[in-house]
Amino acid sequence: MINEKMRELGAKRSVIRELFEYSKARKMEIGEDNVFDFSIGNPSVPAPDCVNSAMTKLIKEENSVLLHGYTSAQGDTHVRQAVVDFINKTQNTCYSANSVYMTVGAAAALTCSLTALVNAGEEVIVLAPYFPEYKVFIERTGGIVKEVLCNETTFQPDFERLEKAINEKTSAIIVNSPNNPTGAVITEENIVKLSALLNKYQQKFGKPIYIICDEPYRELVYGDVTVPFIPKYYDNTIVCYSFSKSLSIPGERIGYVLVPEKAQDNIAIYQAVCGAGRALGFVCAPSLLQKIIPLCIGQTADISIYDKNRQLLLKELTSYGYSVVKPDGAFYLFVKSPSGDGNEFSERAKKHEIMLVPSDSFGCKGYVRLSYCVTTEQIEKALPAFKNLAKSYGITK
Amino acid sequence: MINEKMRELGAKRSVIRELFEYSKARKMEIGEDNVFDFSIGNPSVPAPDCVNSAMTKLIKEENSVLLHGYTSAQGDTHVRQAVVDFINKTQNTCYSANSVYMTVGAAAALTCSLTALVNAGEEVIVLAPYFPEYKVFIERTGGIVKEVLCNETTFQPDFERLEKAINEKTSAIIVNSPNNPTGAVITEENIVKLSALLNKYQQKFGKPIYIICDEPYRELVYGDVTVPFIPKYYDNTIVCYSFSKSLSIPGERIGYVLVPEKAQDNIAIYQAVCGAGRALGFVCAPSLLQKIIPLCIGQTADISIYDKNRQLLLKELTSYGYSVVKPDGAFYLFVKSPSGDGNEFSERAKKHEIMLVPSDSFGCKGYVRLSYCVTTEQIEKALPAFKNLAKSYGITK
Repeated sequence: MINEKMRELGAKRSVIRELFEYSKARKMEIGEDNVFDFSIGNPSVPAPDCVNSAMTKLIKEENSVLLHGYTSAQGDTHVRQAVVDFINKTQNTCYSANSVYMTVGAAAALTCSLTALVNAGEEVIVLAPYFPEYKVFIERTGGIVKEVLCNETTFQPDFERLEKAINEKTSAIIVNSPNNPTGAVITEENIVKLSALLNKYQQKFGKPIYIICDEPYRELVYGDVTVPFIPKYYDNTIVCYSFSKSLSIPGERIGYVLVPEKAQDNIAIYQAVCGAGRALGFVCAPSLLQKIIPLCIGQTADISIYDKNRQLLLKELTSYGYSVVKPDGAFYLFVKSPSGDGNEFSERAKKHEIMLVPSDSFGCKGYVRLSYCVTTEQIEKALPAFKNLAKSYGITK
Repeated sequence: MINEKMRELGAKRSVIRELFEYSKARKMEIGEDNVFDFSIGNPSVPAPDCVNSAMTKLIKEENSVLLHGYTSAQGDTHVRQAVVDFINKTQNTCYSANSVYMTVGAAAALTCSLTALVNAGEEVIVLAPYFPEYKVFIERTGGIVKEVLCNETTFQPDFERLEKAINEKTSAIIVNSPNNPTGAVITEENIVKLSALLNKYQQKFGKPIYIICDEPYRELVYGDVTVPFIPKYYDNTIVCYSFSKSLSIPGERIGYVLVPEKAQDNIAIYQAVCGAGRALGFVCAPSLLQKIIPLCIGQTADISIYDKNRQLLLKELTSYGYSVVKPDGAFYLFVKSPSGDGNEFSERAKKHEIMLVPSDSFGCKGYVRLSYCVTTEQIEKALPAFKNLAKSYGITK
């Protein structure tokens, strides 16, 4: 009859979506300005001008049949060339266009990569806290999710815990840096350590263990932080990228998978990614969206707004007595629950009209995720509510 | 290690793609105008003006964050409303927006529907000849493909063969009318017969058997032919639609699944479709593309060109001695191999620089598929080659 697993996935809204819907209803009741919604990771800054001007230019100048027609399944050649040209220039690599497969966003990049790499019964390690859809994507392939909690002070990988999780069934590890939900960027030192650890077990088991790095937040970093490009440290790395956040076009669904030439069995993996794209029903990434990439790659939306929000929140929330890890990237703040219980914190915050996502669904208890991809004005208006919330816990300094 | 099934799917180009690549190479050798490529079903007429003007208008007038942001997973409400308004108006139905789920094209509509409806080991009937990707989509869910050959004169369903194929494991039947590759439109009489047959076995087995109708060619019909709207004849029908052909935007990937309220367990199915979309990594259909739909629905590209091509080919090929079934819809002609062997016919046609897809991969031997979504000029130039090819078989009248 109906596939029950799928029905459950469709019926059960994610906690994030649940909170978002509650917040919408609440706004209707007490007014838009009186509800402080920090639940959704939807970029709040407009796309850079190049996006709309590239679209307008293409629509005006290109032949309709070519512009809106099928591209090859792996993406238009000149688009893939533009992608590797940019990577090669910025990362000092020398990839060919044939190592890139254009996707319908990062989620598709992940489902294609996981479907390509994972066989039923194999294990995929995720570093908690992590984006909850990883579990959905992995389990759909028949793979098994192996959660490994990060260090709870720095949210860097905990190598002792990680080593215990690796075994002969380990097929891949998903690395998401800058991280959703903590904003942590894995340091170069830790990438080197991670590579050494994985190399040790690749040798021991005589089989590859792939890093799948999920990089939608690559460009969203603050201060002088840089995000190490993992394929330079570890050969068996597959990169999943999305232009959703860098170009502020999350609804348009455009990204890519990069299978570096140095990865073991790279040609077979690339073929399997193409095969997965075919079997999952992707056909090709949206044609117009593909074609704006050569005209927009390297540009970003005005992310200085996120940095401003980050600094304001860090300063104020800390001054109210909250315990917050300073995020180096993305647009999330991971705030410790004063009661130790993330769900309780989220519920109590709701009473102050503040929407914060409890951390349990990210595989890590005791926190909430605050998305600061909102207007600075919203944050300013919410500060008294945050102060009152802190008072209710008696943590105000 | 690497998922071998996926690698094979990615490594093995489809016959269609293989021929298309051969034709590209051949064009380089002997010149674009001397190769007559009828291999690909890529619409050859430009999108109607409304597509580009709707895009330009939205880009110019809409708020960037709203225009390019995430929509809800099932699609923007006003887009889904526009879709059901159009269906309700044209089919005299009364669906609500909540019965529509916007997809990344028809392939996604099919993979989401099949993933929602099929459990491992269940059977899905396909009426041969059929679009070869159905097999890929069905097998990825763990389902089993049950091919039922149509009547070879009319390419209407053969009910005797069909009845033999139905059993307790039958979960669904895919109906594609107008059909790729024959262009046949299933008659109203046969839809009524099909409904009666399925109802009989639903009762016998005490469980639903769903029709999944794949309708990307709904608007591409010629003369006074109309395409019966199957949900009006059979309650347990799920409709998969794409705007690829009607709006000539196949690369842009926009379509929908309709789960009519009358379908048994419609809410559970709709939820399962949403769950499948989530698990397969679709997130939402491309936002800009969704938003042009209310501005373009009901309009079509200039399909009179396809009709002109169809008539020209029918007249000429028949006069050369070929045996061709007159297609009522889509843009394909199914031509019988004079030798009885479709592969031999395709190979021999290549020697005359004509690219025709052998029918074996469509689950039906002895034919070729000719895609006439090309310029009329290409057809006119190819006619002497078709005549010579006929002569080589000694069939010229």
